Amino acid sequence: MGARADALAAAAAVDESRLWSRQMAMAEIGATAKGGVNRAALSDEDRRARRLMLEWAGDLGFEVATDDIANLYIRRPGRQADAAPVVTGSHLDSQPRGGKFDGAYGVIGGFEALEAITQAGIETARPIDVVAWTNEEGGRFQPGAMGSAVFAGVMRLEDQLGLVDSEGVTLEDALAETLASTPGLPRRPLGHPFAAYVEAHIEQGPRLENEGLTIGAVTGIQGIYWFTVEVNGAEAHAGTTPLRTRRDALKAAVAMVTALEELMADESDTVRFTVGRFECHPGSPATVPGHAFFTIDFRHPDPDLIARISAQIAPTCEAHARGCTVTVRPIMEIPPLVFDPTLIDMVEGYAARLGHPVMRMPSGAGHDAGHINHLCPTGMIFVPCERGVSHNEAENATPADLAAGARTLAACLVDLANQE
Amino acid sequence: MGARADALAAAAAVDESRLWSRQMAMAEIGATAKGGVNRAALSDEDRRARRLMLEWAGDLGFEVATDDIANLYIRRPGRQADAAPVVTGSHLDSQPRGGKFDGAYGVIGGFEALEAITQAGIETARPIDVVAWTNEEGGRFQPGAMGSAVFAGVMRLEDQLGLVDSEGVTLEDALAETLASTPGLPRRPLGHPFAAYVEAHIEQGPRLENEGLTIGAVTGIQGIYWFTVEVNGAEAHAGTTPLRTRRDALKAAVAMVTALEELMADESDTVRFTVGRFECHPGSPATVPGHAFFTIDFRHPDPDLIARISAQIAPTCEAHARGCTVTVRPIMEIPPLVFDPTLIDMVEGYAARLGHPVMRMPSGAGHDAGHINHLCPTGMIFVPCERGVSHNEAENATPADLAAGARTLAACLVDLANQE
Repeated sequence: MGARADALAAAAAVDESRLWSRQMAMAEIGATAKGGVNRAALSDEDRRARRLMLEWAGDLGFEVATDDIANLYIRRPGRQADAAPVVTGSHLDSQPRGGKFDGAYGVIGGFEALEAITQAGIETARPIDVVAWTNEEGGRFQPGAMGSAVFAGVMRLEDQLGLVDSEGVTLEDALAETLASTPGLPRRPLGHPFAAYVEAHIEQGPRLENEGLTIGAVTGIQGIYWFTVEVNGAEAHAGTTPLRTRRDALKAAVAMVTALEELMADESDTVRFTVGRFECHPGSPATVPGHAFFTIDFRHPDPDLIARISAQIAPTCEAHARGCTVTVRPIMEIPPLVFDPTLIDMVEGYAARLGHPVMRMPSGAGHDAGHINHLCPTGMIFVPCERGVSHNEAENATPADLAAGARTLAACLVDLANQE
Repeated sequence: MGARADALAAAAAVDESRLWSRQMAMAEIGATAKGGVNRAALSDEDRRARRLMLEWAGDLGFEVATDDIANLYIRRPGRQADAAPVVTGSHLDSQPRGGKFDGAYGVIGGFEALEAITQAGIETARPIDVVAWTNEEGGRFQPGAMGSAVFAGVMRLEDQLGLVDSEGVTLEDALAETLASTPGLPRRPLGHPFAAYVEAHIEQGPRLENEGLTIGAVTGIQGIYWFTVEVNGAEAHAGTTPLRTRRDALKAAVAMVTALEELMADESDTVRFTVGRFECHPGSPATVPGHAFFTIDFRHPDPDLIARISAQIAPTCEAHARGCTVTVRPIMEIPPLVFDPTLIDMVEGYAARLGHPVMRMPSGAGHDAGHINHLCPTGMIFVPCERGVSHNEAENATPADLAAGARTLAACLVDLANQE
């Protein structure tokens, strides 16, 4: 068979019900009463999830390994034992009241691809690895995406060891306990070479569902920029102070948000502009607020547009200060990143060949793939999730969509693992 | 002498420095480090303030009395012992971080008028009383203006006795302790007849100062209307959810406040429109708020304008709901009241005759006079306070302005006390 034929054969061997039962088995670990999952990074639940993956890997005779931050690797060997692997995966930890699919799908869908390739009797030149990155959510130890960041050299493990969770447990202790719970696993070096990386994930937004599509060929991860805006006016008596003499921090902040909405207006509906926190003080109905505070979360895939709009944020707020003082502070700047064009084409191409309606789209959320993109050609595959709901116990996806994603993934992995 | 000549002679006997020293002596009771006053109703400090008034009254041989809610009366008798008195006064309690003049000026300025009338050797037909109303501020036991409300029959004392302060002390106990602290005082019946009532007070707003005037002839108390607005949308991921599919409670609330500003726009700057509380939930920068809440404080002296604007508040909010549900609830409705035209004219006339620049103006804040207006012809005299600051330790007023108010008050009291 040719490489493409092998890829399509692997995709055909993906078993929707087997994938779904593994998702459901994993969802029992840390299951919440409302149908979600609470599986904090490096917790007992996380360790049980890892052992379940190792058990499945053992059943199929795959090789297993870990590294110093407890990223977990499951390998289907290739003909070239020493070649850099093609890697897929995501994470097994969840938000405190998270869903069954965010992260877990990327690991279990990757495992399903490995089993399908095996069942289809396909040999690949390179090994194919499934990785479960440690602490993607950052719910227990901040920041998130830590396992992939440390792997990619974006942050240093030794700088994270002193982190303490809300119960006073250090990352160092939680990590040691987790590594000890899978004794005998060989340790791979952090940053060992990957030939390519493809991550499957639920979209966490409503676009695929709204457009009746099954696969998103992810073009990159949009830039994420956070600002805080602090407005200081003067407290005054609501009954006695004429409006013209007020320096009303609340009304100034309202005018700023209104003006920012105009600044961010976008016919294509690509700009993401959110004011998630908005406060005023002293917060008494009969007192003109002397202080207001709000946050800006602004995201877009295009660095030029980001630069242009970002530069206008402070002047826009100042133009609507209404006699108050205003301080705009950038507090987070994550530039947009673009995935490997060959991988975007490949995901789009195999999805189409497999009969799955597909579109190119940027990722609105951050992912481990964002860090791995620094190391090797990287791509992502999105599948729809119900009403776009994620980071929520109500998170849902259909067995058919998850299988479509795993088929597309299996095809890409075989194709990549047979490349030089 | 004629009645007007007596009135002007009484005014001339007002002693600016005596009035100021009494203000300063009173301000020592409950003095705060920042130059303000913390004198909660029915507290030890309140009792010390009452005893100081009684001491001064004793020095001048005035009659003293109280009633069942511990309103305190100081009487300069008239020729007709049984005639209904002309009454002035205000309150001795303060906000927790209040100023030296809010309330205390009306009591001490009234007392200064009594002493000036005495010094000028003027006899009046009716008695003239100074009253210190219990619990005007409502800082410890809500609602405020309780002493005057109970006196006027607007609320019943027995319904208030069970109120508990933040330390668990009941109003009943605090009241009993206060009444016991001034043993032997005769008790007057609640609601006993007044011939007229004139209250002097700092403006608590900046209008007199801004216009370079000394006396406000208060025309009434503007209506005070409170509404709450609750907005429910849907929480969503700030990175993945297109703006068109959001139901963003924060942005809807911002659009409502903006539209309400247009609704309340008033060239004459008489409308008071304040959003003092504004909240959104869950309050995370990366989550589209699913819930927002704000308060509306709307005040105006004209009942027709109030009715017209109030009727537009809910429709205006609904027109800007942006797919969210919105609930507008009226939670307080205090209709505007108009003081006695004769008393407004009298205050304005005497201020002018005494050479004090004067204007007619409504009161932006509520006062004990609002309740007493139901019982007898009522008026108020405003004097400027620095930058309009009140309910604040920085509250300030000049000795000359306070004296001008006391002169105008003394003249009115003499005039009224010689009327049938």
